[in-house]
This record gives sequence, C-alpha cells and structure tokens, in this order.
Amino acid sequence: MVKKVSILGSTGSIGCNALDVIDSLNHNEYNIKVICLSTNSRISLLAEQIKKHSPETVVIGDKKAYEEFKSNFSFPETEILFGNDALSEISGRDNYELLISALVGFSGLRPTVNAIKSGKDVALANKETLVVAGKLINQLIEKYKVKLIPIDSEHSAILQCLAGENISSVSKIILTASGGPFRNKTLKQMKDITVEEALSHPNWKMGKKITIDSATMMNKGLEVIEAKWLFKTETEKIDVLIHPQSVIHSMVEFIDGSIKAQLGIPDMKIPIQYAITYPDRINSVHSKMDFNLFNSLTFENVDTDKFRCLRIAYDVIKEDSSSAVVMNAANEIAVDLFLNGRIDFLSIPDIIERELDRHKPSPDTDLENIINVDKDTRIYLREKYSI
Amino acid sequence: MVKKVSILGSTGSIGCNALDVIDSLNHNEYNIKVICLSTNSRISLLAEQIKKHSPETVVIGDKKAYEEFKSNFSFPETEILFGNDALSEISGRDNYELLISALVGFSGLRPTVNAIKSGKDVALANKETLVVAGKLINQLIEKYKVKLIPIDSEHSAILQCLAGENISSVSKIILTASGGPFRNKTLKQMKDITVEEALSHPNWKMGKKITIDSATMMNKGLEVIEAKWLFKTETEKIDVLIHPQSVIHSMVEFIDGSIKAQLGIPDMKIPIQYAITYPDRINSVHSKMDFNLFNSLTFENVDTDKFRCLRIAYDVIKEDSSSAVVMNAANEIAVDLFLNGRIDFLSIPDIIERELDRHKPSPDTDLENIINVDKDTRIYLREKYSI
Repeated sequence: MVKKVSILGSTGSIGCNALDVIDSLNHNEYNIKVICLSTNSRISLLAEQIKKHSPETVVIGDKKAYEEFKSNFSFPETEILFGNDALSEISGRDNYELLISALVGFSGLRPTVNAIKSGKDVALANKETLVVAGKLINQLIEKYKVKLIPIDSEHSAILQCLAGENISSVSKIILTASGGPFRNKTLKQMKDITVEEALSHPNWKMGKKITIDSATMMNKGLEVIEAKWLFKTETEKIDVLIHPQSVIHSMVEFIDGSIKAQLGIPDMKIPIQYAITYPDRINSVHSKMDFNLFNSLTFENVDTDKFRCLRIAYDVIKEDSSSAVVMNAANEIAVDLFLNGRIDFLSIPDIIERELDRHKPSPDTDLENIINVDKDTRIYLREKYSI
Repeated sequence: MVKKVSILGSTGSIGCNALDVIDSLNHNEYNIKVICLSTNSRISLLAEQIKKHSPETVVIGDKKAYEEFKSNFSFPETEILFGNDALSEISGRDNYELLISALVGFSGLRPTVNAIKSGKDVALANKETLVVAGKLINQLIEKYKVKLIPIDSEHSAILQCLAGENISSVSKIILTASGGPFRNKTLKQMKDITVEEALSHPNWKMGKKITIDSATMMNKGLEVIEAKWLFKTETEKIDVLIHPQSVIHSMVEFIDGSIKAQLGIPDMKIPIQYAITYPDRINSVHSKMDFNLFNSLTFENVDTDKFRCLRIAYDVIKEDSSSAVVMNAANEIAVDLFLNGRIDFLSIPDIIERELDRHKPSPDTDLENIINVDKDTRIYLREKYSI
C-alpha cells in the first residue's frame, strides 16, 4: 500500500531528516510516495530533492528564489508554485494523505488548518501552530476526525509513554530540556552572548530559529503550550526538568507514582519515523542507544530568572487567549533582531514582555482573529525597529 | 465491586507491602476482601494480620509454628490449616479471584499451578515458579485463559513499557540491576564476604533469600529466565545493565531505536499496586519521585566473571530443560548453607555448577518431573552437606 506524503519545509533540518527516513522506510517494508515539497529559498537543495523524489508539486516561498529557480532549473514533470497562498492551497488538495509540517513559525498555521479541513493526518514539527491556535486546531481535529502526531522529540516521547495508558491516569507531564548552551552561565554573563554562541546547541543540530529559542528556553515554553493542547492537560500538570544529555526525551508520571520515560540517542529521525508509521513501529537502520556512551543521566531544576522566556510562556498559557499569538510573533521578530545583531540576547524577553503589556487579550480564537493579532504585532515591531 | 484476593507468603516483605497497598486502595476507590493469608513460621505477625483483615483461611507452613499458633491464639471465624498441601488446596478453591504469590523459592510452584487451573489470575512475586516451570505455566495460562501479572519491579516495568505496544516491535529487553552491595569489590575481596555484608542491600529491603540472590546476582539470572517466559522473548534479546540507583526499574528497546523505561522511587508498593489494579492505575498515597533527590542516574556493564551466577543462568536457559530446576534447587540450598555460615560467598556458584555438571538435562516439563528433579537435587545436597 502506498502512503502519500507532503512535506512543507523540506529543505530544513526536519524536512531533510524526514526525506532520509522515507528513503530508509522505502528500503524496508514501506512504500511512501512524496507528493509535495516546499522551501523558502534553498532552491539548489530543493532541485536535488525533486530529482530524487519526483514530487508532483513544489512551492517556493521567497519571490526572488522562485524567479531564480524558474530560470535556472527545468522540471517539466513537476508543478512549481510560489508563496504562502500556494502552500495553503496545496495542503487542501486531495492527492495525498499525510502532511509533514516542518515550516518555521507562524507560517505553518494556515497549511495545517487546510490539511485538517481536507481530512489529512498531520505530523507536526511546527509547534508554533499549536501555540497560537491550539484551541482551534483541537476543534478542527475533532470535527474532521484526523490525527495530529507530534514530531518534536519531547512530545513524541510523551505520546509513546501514553500508549496503552488512560489520559486520566496522568498526574504530570515532565518535559525534559537540555538547558541549551547557557545553562551554566550567570545572568550577567548572558548579557554578552554572541549570535555564534547562541547558535551552537550542545546536543541537537537544528534550524536557526529553534536553536535561538533553545538558548533562551522559549522553545521549552512553546513546548509547554504545545503539550497542553496535544494532550489536553492542565498547565499545572506540565513540568520542565533540565536534563543536559538529551537522552530522556520526556516523561509521564501517573497517579500511582509510576513514571514512564522515552529514551534514545538525540536523533530526530526516531520521532520523525514514529510520526510517519504511528502507531506502528518499523525496523530502523538508525544507530541504537549505547549506555556505555550515555552512562550518566543528570537532572536539574530550571532557573526561570535566567530563562525568563519560559516563565513568560507559563504566564501566557494560564489565560488561554490571544496573548499566546502576541508572545509568538514578538518572539519571532526578537529572534530575528538578535540574529541580525540588532539587539542583545537578554532583550529577547524584554521585547516579548513589552508587547504583552501593550496587548489587550481577547478570548476569540478564530483563524482571522489569530492572523490579525499576529499581523498587528509584527507591523508594530517592524516599524519600531525599522525592519 | 469487591475483589477477592489471597496472599500466600503474607508475612514476608512483599506480603506485608501487599496488605498495606490493599489498605490504601480500600481507602480509595477500591474494595478488596482478603480471603486467605499464609506464613511459614511468623505466627505473631500472622495473628495481627488476621485481626486486621479477617481472612476466611490461613495456612501455616511450619509444623511447630502451627501447633504453637493453635495453642496461643484463638480465631473462631478463621480456618487454620497446616502445610504445603493446604497451600495448594486453598489455591484451587473458588472463593477468591486473584492470587498474590509471595512465597519463597520452589514452594510457590504448586499453589500457582492450582490457582491457574481453577481460573484465577496470579500476581507473581515468586519468580522461581517461572524459572523452574515457565513452559508449563505458559501452557496453563493459555489453556485456562488467566492473567499472570509480575510483581518484580523489573518485570512490572517491562509490562508497563509494553502497554499499547506490539511485542513483535521489541528488539531488546533491558533488565536493570543495582549490582548489589559488591559491585565495586574485586573477585579476591568477594571471597571473604560475611553474611551480614551480603544481607545489606543498598536500595531494597527484602527477605533473606532474595537479598543473597541480589548479592550474587543470581536474582538477575532468575529474572532473565522469568522475563523469557513472561514476555515470550528469545534470551539473546534480554540484556542486563547495572544501574546502581535502582530508579529506572527496566527498559524496552524497540525496532525503531526508541527505548521506553519505567522509573520511580525504589518502593515495591508501586509494582504491587499495579499488579492488583492492572491494567488500571489508581491514585496512590505513596511518595512520588523527586528528581532533586535522584539527580544522577548511571549505568555500567555487568562483570560475569565476578557475578558467575548470572552467567550460569544465561547458560541454563539456552537449553530450555530441567537444568533450570537443578540450578534453582542448588541455589536455594547453597544460599541456605551460606546463611548458616557453612560455605563462603563464592562457593554458591561452585555448588550450582557442580550440580549442573552432575545432571542429565531432560526436556520433559510436566509438573511431576519438575518436582522430582527438584527433590533429587535437594536430597543429594542435603546428604552431602549433612543438613
């Protein structure tokens, strides 16, 4: 049986890993056909992916990159589209079954909504979608009876720990966090962090946005919110625990005192494959865990004075409003400003907090309101920082 | 709904913990009625348990203790029986639903067989039953359509990790082992180990037999064999990993490279409660895991030159024969000799190996053959050591 898959964000870290996983599954018992791929601007890599996987359609997000691609490459068998509207449109088509959403940031929202509305299962790496629209997404999942399977290693771990268990038996979800590269720095030392330092994550090789989010621990904050919606859990039941080795990907504590954890080498191919084959498991050629190499697993508490972004996320999710949209948009802009050398590392939470102060939270969670709040925040900040 | 439970070996460590768990469950949503209790010779404790739990029947294994009990105590509402035959008989009665078998050693076999034959589920702490008669027990479980739920923390952990998973997806069962009190001793130092040293386990408070088995790591060997029968797994797929903190109770590795682990404070109440409420989980008042207290989990390989009993068990289970019965009987006698100061610590594996050399393995696994092989081994060794 052929499984037809579309990967949005196929040239990013998750997208490339997903294509590797599909290759390895196709050499095994599976038969996966790639229907659609997309990139923002990495057109040479996209061209290679087209040669190898012969998708029906590709979408290029950046106008200039699209023009360049059209003049440099020729793939007569492949439909070449441009822009965000195309991403949303192809997500609603009927020529595939599973959307792997590996887009970065807010841009992942509309394609995911359209995929769900057209009855597709979604393997979600784009956590921002649930952060800004968790309530809406959950309503749509229920209405259209589709599955939303997390790709994030933490949420994949929790999903695996919950297999065969009753959600009402859960007393706590324990999201582990590497603590990023600055776990042992003082708040004072954190002021002078360079972009290069922030981009070198100790355990995971990932895209720039998520790597900076890991360094500020906003990534963990986004994951707390993601966990709330994915597992329909009260925020008070979601804990974050620093585990520098990133071997235990997360844990679930049950009401009887028992804890289940999912472990493995820090390799995104494992949760990506699980999301594709869920709920089955398929033989994998990826390297297995060697406890001689990972012979000591340690745990620490998080210091939310140092990692203020995590506290902000916990505060925001308490109210279940449009504040999460503002937090997410302000964070995306702030990370961008930091990456471009415009602000220092500790200004990231400052900017987010100021935007939240400015915002009047609304409980309205329809798609248009979410898109408007996101747009307003970005317009204001872009103007303020002359981006 | 009332759940009727019999506990054989109720005055041992597992038995007492099981009664505590039943108390706490009865204060919660459960309604458990204790039908039968048994002890070998701890009659004062048994008397207290009768007062508190009003069982219909109690069995006392030791003749002298039985006589003493009859003359010192009067419980007109409770039937007082004597000996192993009574244990087997009451296990086959129709007045209860779940047998908690917490007997020590080979004596647990016949009551478990009778319980299964009369359609009872069995919560098994007595691993020797599966070691000597795993094949037979599995045949009976299938025939009488009952559940066998492990109480051992390791096997409970594996059962929990397998919830919602397909057994064909398992690539490895990883039994964790504390390594006992002599993990860091050299083989030379191990020669002079005293009974007192061997009885002080670093993490678990247990009965004498299992504590010595933990010190020689025969306990882990018995658990490897137990795991083979419980989870119907090839021995090559069962690994032992030293984990001195006894926080991760065991793990399962799947074919996709993912590993699931079950964790918790080292408290037998958790697996006992899980065995009683399986597959449900019930709120527990027992203390929860605090990662500030257990903030470092470490792993080491086992040295089977030092812990020869583990190697013996792996060798024995390769052949699936009466050798396991000999190994178990010789181990019980050798542990007894060591506890009585008759042999030194390292002679325990010597005695077992000599008995295995003397034995002609038979593939015959019916109950009578198992009982005869066990009896022959004991008679020979008792004669040899004038016990």
